[in-house]
Amino acid sequence: MLDLARLRADTPGTHDVVHFNNAGASLMPRIVIDTVVEHVREEARLGGYEAAGAAAGRLESVYVSVARLLNAQPDEIAVIENATRAWDMAFYSLPLSAGDLVLTSATEYAGNYIPYLQLQKQRGIRIEVIPNDGQGQVSVEALQRRLTDPRVKLVSLPIIATNGGPVQPVEAIGAAAREAGVGFLLDACQGAGHVPLDVKKIGCHMLAATSRKYLRGPRGMGFLYIERALCAQLEPTFLDLHAATLQTPDRFEIRGDARRFENWECNVAAKLGMGAAIDYALELGIVPIWTRIQALAGDLRERLAQIDGVTLQDRGAVKSGIVTFTLDRCDSADVQQWLASQARRINVSRSTFQSTMLDMQMRGLRDVVRASVHAYNSDEDIDALVQAVQAMSRGIAHAR
Amino acid sequence: MLDLARLRADTPGTHDVVHFNNAGASLMPRIVIDTVVEHVREEARLGGYEAAGAAAGRLESVYVSVARLLNAQPDEIAVIENATRAWDMAFYSLPLSAGDLVLTSATEYAGNYIPYLQLQKQRGIRIEVIPNDGQGQVSVEALQRRLTDPRVKLVSLPIIATNGGPVQPVEAIGAAAREAGVGFLLDACQGAGHVPLDVKKIGCHMLAATSRKYLRGPRGMGFLYIERALCAQLEPTFLDLHAATLQTPDRFEIRGDARRFENWECNVAAKLGMGAAIDYALELGIVPIWTRIQALAGDLRERLAQIDGVTLQDRGAVKSGIVTFTLDRCDSADVQQWLASQARRINVSRSTFQSTMLDMQMRGLRDVVRASVHAYNSDEDIDALVQAVQAMSRGIAHAR
Repeated sequence: MLDLARLRADTPGTHDVVHFNNAGASLMPRIVIDTVVEHVREEARLGGYEAAGAAAGRLESVYVSVARLLNAQPDEIAVIENATRAWDMAFYSLPLSAGDLVLTSATEYAGNYIPYLQLQKQRGIRIEVIPNDGQGQVSVEALQRRLTDPRVKLVSLPIIATNGGPVQPVEAIGAAAREAGVGFLLDACQGAGHVPLDVKKIGCHMLAATSRKYLRGPRGMGFLYIERALCAQLEPTFLDLHAATLQTPDRFEIRGDARRFENWECNVAAKLGMGAAIDYALELGIVPIWTRIQALAGDLRERLAQIDGVTLQDRGAVKSGIVTFTLDRCDSADVQQWLASQARRINVSRSTFQSTMLDMQMRGLRDVVRASVHAYNSDEDIDALVQAVQAMSRGIAHAR
Repeated sequence: MLDLARLRADTPGTHDVVHFNNAGASLMPRIVIDTVVEHVREEARLGGYEAAGAAAGRLESVYVSVARLLNAQPDEIAVIENATRAWDMAFYSLPLSAGDLVLTSATEYAGNYIPYLQLQKQRGIRIEVIPNDGQGQVSVEALQRRLTDPRVKLVSLPIIATNGGPVQPVEAIGAAAREAGVGFLLDACQGAGHVPLDVKKIGCHMLAATSRKYLRGPRGMGFLYIERALCAQLEPTFLDLHAATLQTPDRFEIRGDARRFENWECNVAAKLGMGAAIDYALELGIVPIWTRIQALAGDLRERLAQIDGVTLQDRGAVKSGIVTFTLDRCDSADVQQWLASQARRINVSRSTFQSTMLDMQMRGLRDVVRASVHAYNSDEDIDALVQAVQAMSRGIAHAR
């Protein structure tokens, strides 16, 4: 069981805002803020390289922390400036060529879908969407059927979509991909710090995630997991003198570990901050965090469903902490703005048609309000959100 | 003229260290530190996205600041997580193919040279080093002769090498490249905030630089300039939903401005910090900064040259603020460590064979001590460094 009072005391932002934008960027706990700020001050005091030198041991520990989070080995981890570039470094490095088939989910994020289309144009790969099952999540049966096609070279999808929806059955998906000998790239951007992620159990070959969302780390930081056996086979799209070494003026050698996907320079303060965020999450325990998120999100969904004009938009057998809904006769942007007003200070966000086009098109949605719950949210936070949506709904009814 | 007392009062690190590692990462001025720290605190207080929203106007201003620094337009600027990835996004996006010739300088950095070799292997391009003139800088005459070869598709080199040496005659190089209709990619990593950079005068088509070096901004931030006429012709190697927009599930459109080379996520605090660093440098004036750097570096070279056993290693008609030397019978790493010791706290760095192999090989060097001077360094800083090197030299003589 989590100690909510401690969680909130650890999170200065809870004094100022009611934060339901954890799927955007969570409120950082004090240990993360202090780690970042103290390192920036050390850089100012000692010099940027000298401060990094003094923190060398702690910087190495960041890889150990990420590896612990994923049940991986530190040499399977690259720390990369954000999840987008972490995912890019994996995806674009894959030897995909004309006729190769990439299977994805309807919930795929445009940030990944555009790269599929780019390689369709550049290399002639093909993209296919795995149908959903009756509950609105990837149908493992349909996936298994498609995996019999030898042209399938990659399964690539997000564990949780940016616009809510199910926690995908990634263990079953991974098992099916492994059985077929097909690579599995998991976008865990919304999953890290939110649901347990065990790469051995999931069976994914690659996994990318970000610091700023459910992990509660700083912005501008992320990581990539690459299974050791695969790593040496992938030549990163970009190389520098950290990823590779010049042996002679004619020959370079790429390093053996996952850091071949990094480059030399990074935001050291943010890297240390991400390490602190992961350590904090692991100390609390990912299972207790996930258990509490499910309880709070379940409660929020139940109460929102009772409000006149609200339609919940989440699907799937296992629903994440990302609660999405629409309000009749109301633009989602207006709901977001109403909640954010000075009197309320409730942060939610809005998922748009363009960021998950396939899914939104399939469900006939233009956009949704996204209220993403984290373990540090309180019942009072839920009350505040529910009451505000209620008030807005009543205002609309009144104006009618 | 610069007010040295103010420069040092603005730079808290000058109280703690004698910093001659400005070519690694400079000491940040207070305005940069405060900008970064305050934004991180705002993120913690309001939420990461909400804080970025509140800073939207200032974030736009960062592009204006970079553009002013370079005499470019804001739509020609991409803000990218570091200079390596900024340079990568330009270089790897170029339509270079088998037989195309890339001309570089002997002073090229391994971080760029390895990508040349990678495209040599992957696409069959060829690399050729422009010979130096008698003063040890790129021979513009030799360049002009090579530019008559129609296979030459790109001139790509650093304005100042990581291991010191000349400020390359970039205006003459640019004029020659323009005349031949050949692209010119300038690595200004060591140049930004150090020497005046006017892309119109230089005539480069692309320029990449970092925040942390002579610009005195935070680590983990950089930028890319792409000339407007070229931008629309280059398809970035990586795309996401910020660089491009999904129009239909089958079609994306890449944005028109240089931000097509960015991705959506970034370290917002570091981006604001880089903007503050540029504004600070522009307020002081790049010409006064460069004038003072030249005077200090000239003085340092003169005094180091008088020390028994010291060999200055800088060449070129115009020498930068990066002063490099070797000390007889002494490993550069030992010199660095001796200077950094608790009693001295003098930060220098070391340039290794592997990071500028062609140049080091040509000059028969294994490594050099790199003491890089900035405008905020004082005569007392120079005294401290000279005396410490003197003492080390005497110690060696004594031990002999």
